[in-house]
Amino acid sequence: MKKLAREVTIIGVGMHKFGKFLDKGLKELTRVAVWNAIDDAGIDAKQVEAAYFANVLAGLITGQECIRGHVFLRDAGFEGIPIVNVEGACASSSIALREAMIAVGAGLYDVALAVGAEKLYLDDTARSIQAMSTNTDVEFMGQLGFQFTGSYAMILRKYMKQYGWTQEQFAKVASKNKYNGSLNPLAQYQKPMSIEEILNSRLIAWPLTLYMCSTMADGAAAAIVCAKEVAHKISNRMPINIAASCLRSGEVTGEDDGQVHVAHDAYEMAGLNPEDVEVAEVHDAMAPGEMFRIEKLGFCKAEEVSRLVDEEYFTLKGQLPVNPSGGLAARGHPIAATGLAQIAELVWQMRGEAGPRQVRGRNSLYPKVGLTQNSGGYIEGSPAAVSVTILKS
Amino acid sequence: MKKLAREVTIIGVGMHKFGKFLDKGLKELTRVAVWNAIDDAGIDAKQVEAAYFANVLAGLITGQECIRGHVFLRDAGFEGIPIVNVEGACASSSIALREAMIAVGAGLYDVALAVGAEKLYLDDTARSIQAMSTNTDVEFMGQLGFQFTGSYAMILRKYMKQYGWTQEQFAKVASKNKYNGSLNPLAQYQKPMSIEEILNSRLIAWPLTLYMCSTMADGAAAAIVCAKEVAHKISNRMPINIAASCLRSGEVTGEDDGQVHVAHDAYEMAGLNPEDVEVAEVHDAMAPGEMFRIEKLGFCKAEEVSRLVDEEYFTLKGQLPVNPSGGLAARGHPIAATGLAQIAELVWQMRGEAGPRQVRGRNSLYPKVGLTQNSGGYIEGSPAAVSVTILKS
Repeated sequence: MKKLAREVTIIGVGMHKFGKFLDKGLKELTRVAVWNAIDDAGIDAKQVEAAYFANVLAGLITGQECIRGHVFLRDAGFEGIPIVNVEGACASSSIALREAMIAVGAGLYDVALAVGAEKLYLDDTARSIQAMSTNTDVEFMGQLGFQFTGSYAMILRKYMKQYGWTQEQFAKVASKNKYNGSLNPLAQYQKPMSIEEILNSRLIAWPLTLYMCSTMADGAAAAIVCAKEVAHKISNRMPINIAASCLRSGEVTGEDDGQVHVAHDAYEMAGLNPEDVEVAEVHDAMAPGEMFRIEKLGFCKAEEVSRLVDEEYFTLKGQLPVNPSGGLAARGHPIAATGLAQIAELVWQMRGEAGPRQVRGRNSLYPKVGLTQNSGGYIEGSPAAVSVTILKS
Repeated sequence: MKKLAREVTIIGVGMHKFGKFLDKGLKELTRVAVWNAIDDAGIDAKQVEAAYFANVLAGLITGQECIRGHVFLRDAGFEGIPIVNVEGACASSSIALREAMIAVGAGLYDVALAVGAEKLYLDDTARSIQAMSTNTDVEFMGQLGFQFTGSYAMILRKYMKQYGWTQEQFAKVASKNKYNGSLNPLAQYQKPMSIEEILNSRLIAWPLTLYMCSTMADGAAAAIVCAKEVAHKISNRMPINIAASCLRSGEVTGEDDGQVHVAHDAYEMAGLNPEDVEVAEVHDAMAPGEMFRIEKLGFCKAEEVSRLVDEEYFTLKGQLPVNPSGGLAARGHPIAATGLAQIAELVWQMRGEAGPRQVRGRNSLYPKVGLTQNSGGYIEGSPAAVSVTILKS
């Protein structure tokens, strides 16, 4: 594993609340998240030397293609600096963070901005759904009407058969995340829900019921990335180190679909093991998906996940809190904003700023090692882009 | 000017011929360019550790959004490696090259692939033209029907008034580039054209006539980027160093629109001056645009450009050959492929492999310093993304 030339930290994070904002466009969503991150870092916006902007569907939904970050960040006050637009379906802003980390880690900039923004809600829902179906090989799959709900359902049914996972356990995970989301003022859905309510909600694709699934959302999230060697001069904030940020495209040749490999990459880059992780945000577009992410990240074996769910191992007060923000189904999933929202949650948790949903560290007041996992797109049975980031304070 | 941690070279380049290929999709265009670059470098495709993929309009034109590089590069045989999709209108693949350079320069990879591919020709031309109009702030400009032809025409009229540039000189530049393109087997248009033919062609937007303008095109271009310290172990090819690759977003507050600043950045990063450049490929979506690029790059003053055009200073045998490939109007301009096609041309010129359009070096058989300039998008009178790359052998 090759290393970056120098270490990189996060000195500020910010979000625009996730939700349905028919009266707001991508300019406003971007502006709010970016300036919240700048205010959080306590820096002057002029100190930002470069920006990485993630968005997936503006071209198809709002008609803004080609120079998305240039248009939206210019409105937020950024002129002259290099702006790079990146895209990788649901993993887009994890990729933006990673590219910012690489540029700072290369020595090219001291301070860079990573931002992800997405607007999915229109009056025309059919257009949004049509746009979302482009996150696969459209020549091969795009005309079949296959949606992510179906892919999660198929995977979960395999685990049910093989390891005895139950629909009740899936509802338990969803209920945990709805509770976490109820404590998150930036979450799209802030209503706690019982296991029964979730099980009794409308069936979408067996075993998934309505309240296990993420919906459309608008929102944005941002982070200010800084070289570790200058972070203390630039910001008074406790810098949170990016110990690893790894990316792979899905592999379809073997049993593992790249998710296991990218986790290995990240542990190796960080010099850490799964046991070291004290808090995690994982990609659960359907809340029970959290369970197979947990396995692939090496936190435990597939046969152990369901028991640990029953033992409340992954709750806010559990041994390894997962998705304290509420995860995708409660916090919301504005596609390109999700990866940086996961990062923002970890930064808040590691600084001790997460309010009523604050988790504890194992050997310290607040967690010192956090992990995010983010997957995007789908090609022939495999996620197209898989990302794992490890933060360390 | 901060520096990358280590030096980066190009060890291979490849293209798919530019043109109108109604029977070919982005998978085929990508595959041909990528494998030509791999064959050119003489490496095994498994040595490629990461890929940066540039495309602008697949989402709007072919319906493939979200995970473009993942879909097209998987078809070309790439699985498992990190793939990053980047976008910045006409500058997209210059940005892909730059991100590959940064990742290799950071020490993260030894070998990375940069590729740009675009498909504009459909049976439905109106759809392509509509898609192309998204390279501005669509809320502000996109509904006005303003096209790039108009923006070039307005800029050129300003220069005509201020510096006495003439339509005949514009036709002279276009004729030079058509001649260069006639010697380039990968060019879209390979027919030499007289000044009279160009002047007498249909008026598009005064002073621009039809044969001064680039058209739609399909095509792809790729480069294999490698850490200088290992290049000789990996490839037998003469490595061409990336002495600088700089990017800015347009500034609208001053007289200069970022193009001058980004050129300064590049000369500073390379430790070179405009006088050192022996061959250049510049962004001339309308061939006479070459003339103001030449000024902004510091090769001469605006009042000198027209005289130097008359003196054939920028021809293949001139003091500073510009657009030996034919430039955008002759080689063709498949948007996201253009930046890397410029790079491919310089690599061939600097290796002495450019055949009948080979230019000479000033103090050596072949040029030792080459420059590409690439601009993308348009916001309020300024290019949105401006890029300058300097290669050195």
